[in-house]
Amino acid sequence: MGDFMKRVKLIVAYDGTNYSGFQIQDNASTIEGMLKKHLEELVGEPVELIGASRTDAGVHALGNVAVFDTKSRIPAEKFSYALNARLPEDIRIQESGEVPLDWHPRYQNSIKTYVYRIERRTFPNPLTRLYCHSVYWELNVEKMKAAAATLVGEHDFASFCSAGAQVRTTIRTLYQAEVKEEDGGRITIRLQGNGFLYNMVRIIAGTLLEVGRGALEPSDMIDIRKARDRGKAGPTAPARGLTLVGIEYPDDAPQEIVKEEEE
Amino acid sequence: MGDFMKRVKLIVAYDGTNYSGFQIQDNASTIEGMLKKHLEELVGEPVELIGASRTDAGVHALGNVAVFDTKSRIPAEKFSYALNARLPEDIRIQESGEVPLDWHPRYQNSIKTYVYRIERRTFPNPLTRLYCHSVYWELNVEKMKAAAATLVGEHDFASFCSAGAQVRTTIRTLYQAEVKEEDGGRITIRLQGNGFLYNMVRIIAGTLLEVGRGALEPSDMIDIRKARDRGKAGPTAPARGLTLVGIEYPDDAPQEIVKEEEE
Repeated sequence: MGDFMKRVKLIVAYDGTNYSGFQIQDNASTIEGMLKKHLEELVGEPVELIGASRTDAGVHALGNVAVFDTKSRIPAEKFSYALNARLPEDIRIQESGEVPLDWHPRYQNSIKTYVYRIERRTFPNPLTRLYCHSVYWELNVEKMKAAAATLVGEHDFASFCSAGAQVRTTIRTLYQAEVKEEDGGRITIRLQGNGFLYNMVRIIAGTLLEVGRGALEPSDMIDIRKARDRGKAGPTAPARGLTLVGIEYPDDAPQEIVKEEEE
Repeated sequence: MGDFMKRVKLIVAYDGTNYSGFQIQDNASTIEGMLKKHLEELVGEPVELIGASRTDAGVHALGNVAVFDTKSRIPAEKFSYALNARLPEDIRIQESGEVPLDWHPRYQNSIKTYVYRIERRTFPNPLTRLYCHSVYWELNVEKMKAAAATLVGEHDFASFCSAGAQVRTTIRTLYQAEVKEEDGGRITIRLQGNGFLYNMVRIIAGTLLEVGRGALEPSDMIDIRKARDRGKAGPTAPARGLTLVGIEYPDDAPQEIVKEEEE
């Protein structure tokens, strides 16, 4: 044990396939539970984690953020190595470092980037099946791009929020909403914003898929948003296609900005 | 049962992570064993499969080829749908179709394409960990490109063949040996040739990695090849990085050529 308390920030990447989401739960395997267990074994004291994003069961991350306080003498930047030696292969700390004791991963301005991956193929690709939503029908990517573009800006996203979410406001700002087609039938939806409602990315993805297959027109996207009614939007797309790419904290000094890394 | 015997060709994609390779074995889960079991349940008669490439434990495929003979009334092109409804998610038939009864996936000219995927990162990416070999040291990709280029052509590849292989000749022709750097530290080695010796791609990849980290020079690659001695080459790179992308049969009519599809 060291003498002084410090706050350590972790950039956490994980394959969400085998976890019941980020947030700790009794009798379920979670990312937070796994981190807490291995951290406590490592430092020999109880540890409380604060996560930036409570991703759902099956959702992946390349750059989720969590902090914890410890009196351990392990240097903050060495926790990545020490934890990775203990964690299962499907969770890997990408970076660790010290932050001020009052630095909080949720109660400050942040910019989150999510990608939702779709593959258009007759039969799914076994090598990408865990990280992409595979569809066998044709998709009009140009229409999906046009529909996504209508989401950029400050809007009430209540239509793209699952019931049961307790939030003060459903107004959020999207800085980017891009649909990109890559080789091999891969279609990537990339959303960047100052906050996301419960299931927001997956409902947007599910609605863009409806546009892609011709059930909705790009202009319908505006009507759906303005209706502020979850029932008007498309289905919630499967968790496996979703990855939290990274979180930036614009109020931090430049060297503190989380590197946005993508596969 | 139909009256006439037909030969059905399957293009098989699989995630090799949880299998002891392609070839059927007692008391081990294999791709061939899984295909045979589900085919026999489907057609209600014993089935013998002939595979094109007996990929090793942990090696993946997007386009391995297998054939079987059956009197089943199921149309040849429908076997893909019928089998995929039964197979586990990590094996997916990409295409099925009828071929002449004497069409053999090994005893004819073929062009095989393999890719070996490497990711250069401080810590592995959990989302690609099953399909890439992750290294944390710097790699000189230009030197790897130059070393790979020396392999193109008809050569004796005995230095790149694991002991125990029983082959008449270790002479093979490589049509392509390319190293490509992509975003996010991904390095792809792509080899195309008329045949590959046991562990040949993984030993070439392991040797190119030695060039990349500076332990060998590109010109050493020629000396290693000419030595015809497995001991001169680098280590066998891990199975998880290797994918059999596809097999073409140049003597087939054009419509029979296997589509080479890549993730």
